[in-house]
Amino acid sequence: MLEKILELLEARKFASIREILNDANEVDIAALFEELPEEYALRVFRLLPKEVAADVFSYMSNDIRQNIIEAITDQELSGIIDELFLDDTVDLIEEMPATVVKKVLANTDSKKRALINRFLQYKEDSAGSIMTIEFVDLKKEMTVRQAFEYIRRTGVDKETIYTCFVTNKSRTLEGVVTVKDLLLSDDDEIIENIMDTNIIYVSTDDDKEVVAKIFDKYSFLSLPVVDKEKRLVGIVTFDDAIDVIQDENTEDFEKMAAIIPSDEPYLKTSPFKHARHRLPWLLLLMISATFTGAIITSFQEKFMSVAGAALVAFIPMLMDTGGNCGSQTSTLTIRGMSLGQIQGRDVLKVWWQEISVAVMTGAVLAIVNIVRIYLLNGRNILLALTVSLSLYATVIIAQSVGCLLPIGAKKIGLDPAVTASPLITTIVDACALSIYFVIAKIILPL
Amino acid sequence: MLEKILELLEARKFASIREILNDANEVDIAALFEELPEEYALRVFRLLPKEVAADVFSYMSNDIRQNIIEAITDQELSGIIDELFLDDTVDLIEEMPATVVKKVLANTDSKKRALINRFLQYKEDSAGSIMTIEFVDLKKEMTVRQAFEYIRRTGVDKETIYTCFVTNKSRTLEGVVTVKDLLLSDDDEIIENIMDTNIIYVSTDDDKEVVAKIFDKYSFLSLPVVDKEKRLVGIVTFDDAIDVIQDENTEDFEKMAAIIPSDEPYLKTSPFKHARHRLPWLLLLMISATFTGAIITSFQEKFMSVAGAALVAFIPMLMDTGGNCGSQTSTLTIRGMSLGQIQGRDVLKVWWQEISVAVMTGAVLAIVNIVRIYLLNGRNILLALTVSLSLYATVIIAQSVGCLLPIGAKKIGLDPAVTASPLITTIVDACALSIYFVIAKIILPL
Repeated sequence: MLEKILELLEARKFASIREILNDANEVDIAALFEELPEEYALRVFRLLPKEVAADVFSYMSNDIRQNIIEAITDQELSGIIDELFLDDTVDLIEEMPATVVKKVLANTDSKKRALINRFLQYKEDSAGSIMTIEFVDLKKEMTVRQAFEYIRRTGVDKETIYTCFVTNKSRTLEGVVTVKDLLLSDDDEIIENIMDTNIIYVSTDDDKEVVAKIFDKYSFLSLPVVDKEKRLVGIVTFDDAIDVIQDENTEDFEKMAAIIPSDEPYLKTSPFKHARHRLPWLLLLMISATFTGAIITSFQEKFMSVAGAALVAFIPMLMDTGGNCGSQTSTLTIRGMSLGQIQGRDVLKVWWQEISVAVMTGAVLAIVNIVRIYLLNGRNILLALTVSLSLYATVIIAQSVGCLLPIGAKKIGLDPAVTASPLITTIVDACALSIYFVIAKIILPL
Repeated sequence: MLEKILELLEARKFASIREILNDANEVDIAALFEELPEEYALRVFRLLPKEVAADVFSYMSNDIRQNIIEAITDQELSGIIDELFLDDTVDLIEEMPATVVKKVLANTDSKKRALINRFLQYKEDSAGSIMTIEFVDLKKEMTVRQAFEYIRRTGVDKETIYTCFVTNKSRTLEGVVTVKDLLLSDDDEIIENIMDTNIIYVSTDDDKEVVAKIFDKYSFLSLPVVDKEKRLVGIVTFDDAIDVIQDENTEDFEKMAAIIPSDEPYLKTSPFKHARHRLPWLLLLMISATFTGAIITSFQEKFMSVAGAALVAFIPMLMDTGGNCGSQTSTLTIRGMSLGQIQGRDVLKVWWQEISVAVMTGAVLAIVNIVRIYLLNGRNILLALTVSLSLYATVIIAQSVGCLLPIGAKKIGLDPAVTASPLITTIVDACALSIYFVIAKIILPL
């Protein structure tokens, strides 16, 4: 699409551009702006119909949005803000620099400004901060026909109309009815008779992780959000839920790689910020690896022989294999917990499972290792035995630590993902080396 | 819910159980069966109304489903199969042992059996294998009123009615219209005038990863699936898409931890299968760590001095820090690629970003290290310099390998996630040690 548009821009064939844009999906138009040279952005943006412009705007990256806000007139801006859903407006305000926010607020009507202010008070990452207030609310006394009339009259401004919420006079949630239920019912049926009163909802203070879990578990189109007085204040729609699910996954990926999570896309984050998010764990883990070094030194002093020197060559293999086993186990455990497949009460089941797996994998690794060392290291069977026994023990310990640490972390209220691979690696390294030297002392003539 | 139900079972108050079940969500009822003692399962299952039973059934785990199928009568089973959506029936058949499949097929009518056979021919993990055939298809000549009549007449059997697909006589897809469009249009409007002809669709052969990416990018309720002749054969609904997105994430987690991916939940996988999925990479990485060992040995022979022995103590710190930097970078790169934030053409941008980050993090780590070694290792400034310079170089190499390897893998058609942490760790280890010994040879009086 980009090349075609650039060509038409050169030829000043704006009507043809408008035609192409009319046929394209809003997400794709927004992606187009990321590639478009800055000098053309405004011109193309002005070719979009007003409703489409607001939609495209909500999918753009922050830099592009900032450029456009700074370039357009107040009147154009207030047209866009009018069309934007409230949750998208709030996102915009949270992400723009102060001067831009000022221009946005100056072009927002006072009623919407009041709503925005209320929104900004919700905790970051809470259900309140990601919900939208544009939902269809019905009364239980309505007939199906009246409900349809109401939806037809007001539905154009609602983000999703397919799940309708039934509230009483004090705005308390009483039931849920889907458009499918309405369509399949008689026109004179009363809403109360067809609504579902078993309602799953979240509170504005709940973490968005809770929201993600509910969408993952139940196949909802939207999830009601209530305030402390159980009044319906908003809904989270499934498309926002997919974003939340992906954010939560990204967070887990980052934590498991010893990175402090960030909301920004990789290339939009400054190197300085990247460094700040990675350094704390790197420093902590570097210091903790010193203990492993200290273990080596203390044993070196005792093993200043040829046999002792031979032991050193197997340290990387032992440490790496232990680390790999630990991170395999911790990854499966943490993922299982975040998908709800593993609960705290399963700890012994999981541990038993991991011990069983370790007995099998450890045996194969140890046998391959014995053969390899025996053949390649001068048929030194004692050395082969020492290394392989240590390897076996390391695998069992690594897989135990790999499952017990994340489950234990969750039990005492810590985030399991944070305890993952790197921290486990450090613990497993220290254990592996200690075992190695103890077994060497017993078996080898040092 | 479980305790209450058990109590009522003891008291034989089946009517009260039915009442509780009537109010509960199908997902929660299915979860109840996972906890319920086997002897009660059948009795409780029989208390469910037929439509609910089929829904609950589709959310159950395989063991429970198998027990129930084996226990119920043919007539009951054929009632459930009648109510099940076709994609759920196909899943069931794919996951049950042969004897159970036989009983299921014997109780399926011949029309549905023919459809199932067609489904079973779609490649595993293809769009065809996850689609459902229950969708609403309209004709462009219909009026809105006729469309609603059609939906009301047929909609009860369709998995989602909110996106309707407009097809011509040869079943080719011509347009899409949502129930919202229909509701907000005049009753006499012709479908052709309100349908959207810019349709995003997938083919039955496309991988489910493609499906996941489209749902992640566009906020669709359902996505049409066409065959080779561009005829509409099914749809993927958003709830299945969330499952696919989560499956793809789990696959990435597993690959990045050097595990061969599996579809089964953690606790439902046998230890033997777990071992089979983890051993290949463990073996490969164990063998490759031998090279690191060989490097140590070859340098040991040259450094048989006290200073040389002191160097060994810092090997774990160097290897671990390099590994951590590499896995931080590779995780961010792989995640960025799978979210579409990083493209192949961004390779130099990403590399430059990582070098910038490495220059900063490396400097901090190196300085902390110089101070620490100088203070704790007998004010040996040359040793401190050797270790810290090597550390700095290792960080830069680790972050370069961490981003270049996954992007390169993708360019030549390999899976970036497979090249992740453990493989990178092995490469970085070898580089770190070589640099370490080269720098030591230059700086230290050995």
